[in-house]
Amino acid sequence: MANKIALVGIGKIARDQHVPAIAASTDWDLAATVSREGSVDGVPAYTDFSRMLDENPDIGTVSFCVPPAPRFTYASAAIAAGRNVMLEKPPGATLSECFALKDRAAEAGVSIFATWHSREAAQVDAAKAWLGTRKLRQLHITWKEDVRRWHPGQEWIWQPAGLGVFDPGINALSILTKILPDPIHLTAAVLSVPENVTMPVAAELRFSHPHGALISAEFDFLQEGEQTWTMEAETEEGTLVLSDGGAHLRIDGVDQPGDSSDGGPSDSGPSDGDPGDGNPLQGEYPRLYAQMAALVRNGESDMDLAPMAHVADAFLLGTRVSVEPFIE
Amino acid sequence: MANKIALVGIGKIARDQHVPAIAASTDWDLAATVSREGSVDGVPAYTDFSRMLDENPDIGTVSFCVPPAPRFTYASAAIAAGRNVMLEKPPGATLSECFALKDRAAEAGVSIFATWHSREAAQVDAAKAWLGTRKLRQLHITWKEDVRRWHPGQEWIWQPAGLGVFDPGINALSILTKILPDPIHLTAAVLSVPENVTMPVAAELRFSHPHGALISAEFDFLQEGEQTWTMEAETEEGTLVLSDGGAHLRIDGVDQPGDSSDGGPSDSGPSDGDPGDGNPLQGEYPRLYAQMAALVRNGESDMDLAPMAHVADAFLLGTRVSVEPFIE
Repeated sequence: MANKIALVGIGKIARDQHVPAIAASTDWDLAATVSREGSVDGVPAYTDFSRMLDENPDIGTVSFCVPPAPRFTYASAAIAAGRNVMLEKPPGATLSECFALKDRAAEAGVSIFATWHSREAAQVDAAKAWLGTRKLRQLHITWKEDVRRWHPGQEWIWQPAGLGVFDPGINALSILTKILPDPIHLTAAVLSVPENVTMPVAAELRFSHPHGALISAEFDFLQEGEQTWTMEAETEEGTLVLSDGGAHLRIDGVDQPGDSSDGGPSDSGPSDGDPGDGNPLQGEYPRLYAQMAALVRNGESDMDLAPMAHVADAFLLGTRVSVEPFIE
Repeated sequence: MANKIALVGIGKIARDQHVPAIAASTDWDLAATVSREGSVDGVPAYTDFSRMLDENPDIGTVSFCVPPAPRFTYASAAIAAGRNVMLEKPPGATLSECFALKDRAAEAGVSIFATWHSREAAQVDAAKAWLGTRKLRQLHITWKEDVRRWHPGQEWIWQPAGLGVFDPGINALSILTKILPDPIHLTAAVLSVPENVTMPVAAELRFSHPHGALISAEFDFLQEGEQTWTMEAETEEGTLVLSDGGAHLRIDGVDQPGDSSDGGPSDSGPSDGDPGDGNPLQGEYPRLYAQMAALVRNGESDMDLAPMAHVADAFLLGTRVSVEPFIE
């Protein structure tokens, strides 16, 4: 039987991904929404989060798609009310609040899931399996997209906690930390910050790897024309190219079969802001909701904060370069 | 019987604090130093860390006072060689590397201790006990010192991983996270960054507290004249002032007795760069080395990264204000 779930924050990502994924799931029944403005046809809509909790004791799980800044207050309230919590990426505005949520969920005996949708892209598991048995020499991430195309009017992305180019960049880091068998850490970062905003529009990162492999990343939020979400790895036993945000895999120059290899053209893109044309994110959110169902069933949690720790490290360690103002 | 320990990085903090603390300890015997330039009279001095490890299999513990940036490589090598590791604050240049060290130490079965010397200041435990039974309304940290006085010529403090004013500020955060019974997280930060360096020279922080108390902090690295390292807390049951970096405690206006209440004048200061005149840090480092001995004896580790997570959060969330160049 499907369990009742509430969705909080009915914006672009909710409409494009969460609502269809829940609708297609046999695990979940969308029983309420909470949003200042948005709603979903046929689903009881609330603007007051506490009221939704009070009036719906049978809704055992709450999924949050609100921007990171206001999320903690709601998520804490949900946990305090004994509800399971599912968090869109990034799981919070600060690492400390994520640690706090994790502890509170454990104390309350509810499940909490910090989701990283890009980890569920079609070929990520295959890439992980391939890299797991090979000796890495180098890996380079190129994550370049057009913020005006994928995040139109989303001003929060430039404000504190919005992460700027790390909003898509954290997707790359979530894949990286899943597919590499060894932990890495940042050794240098350069952040390009437009004069008129707080958050970076581009970044270059370099990591230390326990066996000396060269790991680097290049993020750009002003990429017009072709959009690129690619990781290229060179090992002693061959090369791997994971492209389109994890949807496509090429080993030693040969395309690997996979369930989205006949997806849309690569420039229809796996950005969070993807409009769903050709739906290259197909499968990511359904898999997240299936995982949430399994976590709840087993009374478990999954709160891996490694991608966010790398982002915080980049802000902590990075040198800043001032670049021209960002005007949308 | 005393256990052999090696000290890595013979600079100001090593001479002022670590060497005297080890010399006064019955737990430890300083058996080697590793440093590019420094040495300690009568102790075998190395410049090559690997050689020190190779030639001294009987040195079971290594204490690191090198700046955070180069520390990871040495600490990893020590762990890989089966040695216990003690880390001066901050425990690393990034959070991710600290998580990695923690995991490696656990795998290797050695003890690791991320020390926070300010937590051992004379009145910190008393402040913690007092706050533990009272309802907090607000707490304000004022941490203002003169970088030119306490960190003369220490250029690393302005470079990536140097933390700038958060080098002393993290001491305040280490005390705060020890004395508060509830976890907090940052909600806003303003960082003042001199035009010619990467790291902030001043910061204002605001935190969220689970019961709604107002928690704030003010750090300044250009404070001439009187130096201030104070926390003022107002509870429903009275007020607390913890001053001189934790050395002095005043409850409801009354000075509390304590083992350093007759220490030097407050402006001789508990900064990391304290020259030892009047030694207001007296007791902090001996207590850290006693704790390390206990951890090793019991096969335990203590790697609390909360203070560093708050600093990373401040860099992640903070808005930056450009201020006039810092010229030493």
